[in-house]
Amino acid sequence: MTRAMYPGSFDPVHVGHVDIVEIAAAAFDEVIVVTMYNPAKDGFFPLAQRRELLEATLGHLHNVSITSAAGLVVDAACDLGATVIVKGIRSATDLDVELQMAQTNKAVSGVQTMFVPTEPDHSFVSSRFIREIASHGGDVSALVPPLVAEALARKVSE
Amino acid sequence: MTRAMYPGSFDPVHVGHVDIVEIAAAAFDEVIVVTMYNPAKDGFFPLAQRRELLEATLGHLHNVSITSAAGLVVDAACDLGATVIVKGIRSATDLDVELQMAQTNKAVSGVQTMFVPTEPDHSFVSSRFIREIASHGGDVSALVPPLVAEALARKVSE
Amino acid sequence: MTRAMYPGSFDPVHVGHVDIVEIAAAAFDEVIVVTMYNPAKDGFFPLAQRRELLEATLGHLHNVSITSAAGLVVDAACDLGATVIVKGIRSATDLDVELQMAQTNKAVSGVQTMFVPTEPDHSFVSSRFIREIASHGGDVSALVPPLVAEALARKVSE
Amino acid sequence: MTRAMYPGSFDPVHVGHVDIVEIAAAAFDEVIVVTMYNPAKDGFFPLAQRRELLEATLGHLHNVSITSAAGLVVDAACDLGATVIVKGIRSATDLDVELQMAQTNKAVSGVQTMFVPTEPDHSFVSSRFIREIASHGGDVSALVPPLVAEALARKVSE
Amino acid sequence: MTRAMYPGSFDPVHVGHVDIVEIAAAAFDEVIVVTMYNPAKDGFFPLAQRRELLEATLGHLHNVSITSAAGLVVDAACDLGATVIVKGIRSATDLDVELQMAQTNKAVSGVQTMFVPTEPDHSFVSSRFIREIASHGGDVSALVPPLVAEALARKVSE
Amino acid sequence: MTRAMYPGSFDPVHVGHVDIVEIAAAAFDEVIVVTMYNPAKDGFFPLAQRRELLEATLGHLHNVSITSAAGLVVDAACDLGATVIVKGIRSATDLDVELQMAQTNKAVSGVQTMFVPTEPDHSFVSSRFIREIASHGGDVSALVPPLVAEALARKVSE
Repeated sequence: MTRAMYPGSFDPVHVGHVDIVEIAAAAFDEVIVVTMYNPAKDGFFPLAQRRELLEATLGHLHNVSITSAAGLVVDAACDLGATVIVKGIRSATDLDVELQMAQTNKAVSGVQTMFVPTEPDHSFVSSRFIREIASHGGDVSALVPPLVAEALARKVSE
Repeated sequence: MTRAMYPGSFDPVHVGHVDIVEIAAAAFDEVIVVTMYNPAKDGFFPLAQRRELLEATLGHLHNVSITSAAGLVVDAACDLGATVIVKGIRSATDLDVELQMAQTNKAVSGVQTMFVPTEPDHSFVSSRFIREIASHGGDVSALVPPLVAEALARKVSE
Repeated sequence: MTRAMYPGSFDPVHVGHVDIVEIAAAAFDEVIVVTMYNPAKDGFFPLAQRRELLEATLGHLHNVSITSAAGLVVDAACDLGATVIVKGIRSATDLDVELQMAQTNKAVSGVQTMFVPTEPDHSFVSSRFIREIASHGGDVSALVPPLVAEALARKVSE
Repeated sequence: MTRAMYPGSFDPVHVGHVDIVEIAAAAFDEVIVVTMYNPAKDGFFPLAQRRELLEATLGHLHNVSITSAAGLVVDAACDLGATVIVKGIRSATDLDVELQMAQTNKAVSGVQTMFVPTEPDHSFVSSRFIREIASHGGDVSALVPPLVAEALARKVSE
Repeated sequence: MTRAMYPGSFDPVHVGHVDIVEIAAAAFDEVIVVTMYNPAKDGFFPLAQRRELLEATLGHLHNVSITSAAGLVVDAACDLGATVIVKGIRSATDLDVELQMAQTNKAVSGVQTMFVPTEPDHSFVSSRFIREIASHGGDVSALVPPLVAEALARKVSE
Repeated sequence: MTRAMYPGSFDPVHVGHVDIVEIAAAAFDEVIVVTMYNPAKDGFFPLAQRRELLEATLGHLHNVSITSAAGLVVDAACDLGATVIVKGIRSATDLDVELQMAQTNKAVSGVQTMFVPTEPDHSFVSSRFIREIASHGGDVSALVPPLVAEALARKVSE
């Protein structure tokens, strides 16, 4: 029985995240999607809304659950009993930073990271660019689940 | 139940390979180590010996089995009923090639690749350098299991 | 009036190549697709067939023409009066090699290279993998124009 | 007729920028150099001075014009009727970020990015390092047009 | 007689830094470890303590001395009469940034940078991750000299 | 007293090589330039001529000597009493391969590698491209010392 953890800030969840969760859900017995947050800093969406959008988007996957954590990813992994951390990987530059984090996490806690390549047609999607484009009134409906597109539109029109 | 496949030429198996198999064996229900060979080209060690050295090295892992295949890795995955291909990943340059192969394999067969970072202290080890150093009489005993070191010494002294 | 050249071995042309030609045709006045060949070495498809498949695939683009050349890409550029070489670019590893070639070409001939990012959903496609998969009877119809898929099937069944 | 756009903060313009503009001006019918600015944040040089230094440096190129824009680069491209965004590219690490941005921009607006390799002997030059070195009284006259060197000296002596 | 300089913020010094200093001390006649600081910004440890921890850790190397400097690394190199700057290098992404800095430094001052590969088993260690993990109560004793581990524990318990 | 070794095939020596030797000669007490050759395979230039061209090009550097070796670079280093191997480094892709070799060499022999960044304006130069361009009658006189340009012209006209 392997419990995998997929950490991220999911601010907001996008189609690339959904790909990774579906792949992890097919490969591991149980997947916990963990919204990492910084108690001292607000996100673009509040934590509760980020989690709601994840629940609405991933509710159809029966072995996936959603939670949130502050602090270190490895501490969350240990608290949740996860032995594998799943990360999406897009490019060589991503890898160098992620490899360093993965090896540090293994050295201090024994938790193993596995990298899942993003789907090619979603490989360029990032939450940061989505927030930026949506904030300027751009159309990001191809890059996020429909509910997220609506939430972005509401947030920007406020 | 996830059956993962770890393909390679394992010519010869080294400490970096052993790390990856141990990690895969802990994460997946079943792991098949597949020695890929080219029927038209001899390796440094014959296929049978490569498989024997793998068996001797990995025999202690109860959910790991050893086999061999020619042709495409994805065809082997489909034949063996494996839904995940596990690859070790050392560096950004590795990644760009592996990412391309992983996305091609997914597009033509649906089989998913996952990347496992090598252990830092084994990150530089490669079968090619081991063969090269051993052929010149160098000492590679820190880079391979003891049985492989002996096989290399015998082969080189011939 | 800018005449751009898009060199490659096109053995065979695939969907990623078609993307780049369409982008170049929209940006430059004239685009010459040049099939580079080695007189001393046969390709997978003969040169004439590679050119025919390009003609059939790109015939709808009115400012694109097809030719072939042996030797250096920069010599072909000079012979054809092209001042820009267009190259598709997929990844960081691609770039380092291409950058070196581009700077060498500029230094010895003054011809300028421009890099066009591949479309994300075709970013992993390569002629080498297509040949390999088709040779083993795999289905590559999503990666090549229909006529090329047919030519591959005929070639492999022979 | 292709109108290309070369966006940047140009704070200040340096020899590497000048290379790229000259290459773009030779390849495309029209080039608009767009000084991107953040209305909420001052630059090192004020926007007006950045534009003046660009005008003085690039005035000799008859198909180049200078303007400025806030917000998203793609929105500026659409407003200006540019169908190609030109970016200089120095290294693999540059590329991974630029590729992601280029593919995002294409997906949300259809505007195409082309990458131009920097001239080798200017490949290391960056506005950030120039500001840092000039601020500490270092000599950057080899890295910027003469007028910019003077403006930097005046600014630092204030 | 070559005097080399090893600059860093050493906040705090870790096992990867110690490797590089030992390698530099074996290769060059004299090595000056220079703690770079920003007078306008406090570090995690105060400058004086960072230097004390370096002294205590590197005191056994007879041709190594410790000092500190603000401002540009090249200015410090010139002030100290160092003709070589030594930098540790971990990965491709590191390299692209370091290469740009090295070439800028050479162009404005003539000082030469040399890159030393980190030891594989320390290749992932960074001061930033150490501070982050220690701040959350994690165990970093395998990543820093014993005195630094104690200083981190004291600092965090305050 | 540090003896450094600069290995390469130098087939032929070019301006980028000369940069690295000059930098190494300034940093280390003694530098041995070692022409690595494969007894089973001829180069473009015969070994003796490669060494003559190196002697003629580097004769002005009083602490540099020229020799040759077959087999492993680390074995040559040990035979020659060199404790440092100097390698030029051009790009991130270069680095990943060189890092692996450097760490393997250190692990099996204790010999340390140091990387020297190439001069920006020579960063794209490679012996392979020089041979290719010269073979097609191209002008490479900006990329090699004058004597090498003459040797290439003679060789190609034969």
